[in-house]
Amino acid sequence: MGLLLDTALGKKCERTPIWLMRQAGRYMPEYRAVREKFSFLEMCMQYENAVEVTMQPIDILDVDAAILFSDILTPLIPMGFDLKFYEGRGPVIHNPIENAEDVSRVVVPDVKKGSDYVYDALSAIRKKLSPEKDLIGFSGAPFTVASYAIEGGSSKNYLKIKTFMYTQPKAYDELMNKIAEMTCYYLLEQFKAGAQIVQIFDSWGGVLSREDYLKYSHPYTVKIIDFIKKETGGKPVIHFVKGANAYFDSVADSQADVLGTDWTLPLNVAKDLCNNSRVLQGNLDPASLFSNKEILADKLELIREQAKGLKGHIFNLGHGIMPKTPVENVKFVVDTVKSWRNN
Amino acid sequence: MGLLLDTALGKKCERTPIWLMRQAGRYMPEYRAVREKFSFLEMCMQYENAVEVTMQPIDILDVDAAILFSDILTPLIPMGFDLKFYEGRGPVIHNPIENAEDVSRVVVPDVKKGSDYVYDALSAIRKKLSPEKDLIGFSGAPFTVASYAIEGGSSKNYLKIKTFMYTQPKAYDELMNKIAEMTCYYLLEQFKAGAQIVQIFDSWGGVLSREDYLKYSHPYTVKIIDFIKKETGGKPVIHFVKGANAYFDSVADSQADVLGTDWTLPLNVAKDLCNNSRVLQGNLDPASLFSNKEILADKLELIREQAKGLKGHIFNLGHGIMPKTPVENVKFVVDTVKSWRNN
Repeated sequence: MGLLLDTALGKKCERTPIWLMRQAGRYMPEYRAVREKFSFLEMCMQYENAVEVTMQPIDILDVDAAILFSDILTPLIPMGFDLKFYEGRGPVIHNPIENAEDVSRVVVPDVKKGSDYVYDALSAIRKKLSPEKDLIGFSGAPFTVASYAIEGGSSKNYLKIKTFMYTQPKAYDELMNKIAEMTCYYLLEQFKAGAQIVQIFDSWGGVLSREDYLKYSHPYTVKIIDFIKKETGGKPVIHFVKGANAYFDSVADSQADVLGTDWTLPLNVAKDLCNNSRVLQGNLDPASLFSNKEILADKLELIREQAKGLKGHIFNLGHGIMPKTPVENVKFVVDTVKSWRNN
Repeated sequence: MGLLLDTALGKKCERTPIWLMRQAGRYMPEYRAVREKFSFLEMCMQYENAVEVTMQPIDILDVDAAILFSDILTPLIPMGFDLKFYEGRGPVIHNPIENAEDVSRVVVPDVKKGSDYVYDALSAIRKKLSPEKDLIGFSGAPFTVASYAIEGGSSKNYLKIKTFMYTQPKAYDELMNKIAEMTCYYLLEQFKAGAQIVQIFDSWGGVLSREDYLKYSHPYTVKIIDFIKKETGGKPVIHFVKGANAYFDSVADSQADVLGTDWTLPLNVAKDLCNNSRVLQGNLDPASLFSNKEILADKLELIREQAKGLKGHIFNLGHGIMPKTPVENVKFVVDTVKSWRNN
């Protein structure tokens, strides 16, 4: 058990743990060397590949935790969705949900079925990791996963899922419950395989107004967190909703141990909004990694300042690392944060 | 002088004024009938077209104000940018700023030069409008306009402008000052031509962290607002920064009379963040116009509730109306809001 887990569980630690969303990725030459030989889905679904690239940021950056290399959308495949990834276009679902009837064909797969490679990878990674490095599993939040299932891919204004949730409330609820049920077992099996903490990514929850977030996204994530807490005896959960910043108090209303913040929600503001009841994770703008060490040093110092007095702080970016990020700047951030000492 | 102006200037009015961002647009069959015959730029730059479509929502919806039909990017043309609009792709700038040297070729045009059609349209519209309907002029905020000038069009993560502002601070400042200077005179001439209030759109300011917003966007907008206040003897200004919600207190730090809010910033939260020092404008999610009257009625009631006790409230959407929005739902919103009475 390492610093990440200790901090997530509310213990005071000697320093702030750090990991980075999408820390295994295209910005790293070592990743690109593997990626050249395999498609993105083969990287996720051939577990030897997933293990190899998951370990890269541990070996190269010496971050405090490994996060399984995968994608929030792969569990849609055993649910019956035809998911493909295209270069420069991202994920495409070729049979998206277009009407209420389509929801009835969505399968809730048997536990483990179709996602064995995830659990195999987690077991193998946990064996390779030294004990002080923690292992993070993850899933998408049902709203974010459903947005792809309904939009058919990335979206500019989320009009299809919003129209669907407003006009087909029963079918929407059925779809969300199916995704939530799948996710409960998907995350539970990840814990059984070796994950010690999980993050639930609601990457697009912030496109909703507060009342819509509370009606159409939050309850389904809460169901998953409640299930995980009960079935694992309280293992830690990180809940990250990007952009839901003006109503972060509503996001905080769950059993999640850690709340993620993006760079537009200053940590001191987030602290006040949740009454300092949660450990916070974040929140450097990944675009700032394209600046230089002087600017980065200032930004890190500001985050350190804003994190003072928090119940706990896990350093991270506010979103995933981007493809052409200079590796030396990433190393500078990791080394700087690891040099901080809490007193 | 109508309800919009009175409310913006802090007077208590018998009812909440309403106008809608992009109220003249593709969702209206009357607009599409004109648009069939002209390109998007011809719609903006042939002032008879701009006048015709600007008047449509007044005649059809009976909203309380007209806003000039135009685009925030057209003033980039006399600055030397090669701006085109393509169907389904939006704006493209074929000679974007790629390095510090490119900034020196950016022209600050003589007052009026190259934008005469805007002032001609405003004069003609003011003559056509009945006295109780107010006329709104507008511009982009320098950060948002510069994002197109540097990215070359719409952007997903604003990486080019962020990299430019971090790594070329002097050239960035020079570019922003040129855009701000142009905008000062662009808005002043709009007032002279007949506009009674202006809105400055910082549509993408919310992609910045608080400290970056305060360094790279806010000061340039403040310069414009200060100039307008001084030169017009205090004519009203609406400042709308989309997404900068967790640091709305920082946005509020200017002489703007009215602050725009998007649907992820509840009006009661915004009120507290600016100590109720400003009239607020907003903030229905434009996607909710794709629902039905029952849902819309609930959402309108919630906004009315959240607006209680505000210094003043101008009803609007949280962003522009989308192309396929059902006109009957827009009418329902306008009629409902106009039926409210303040007591």
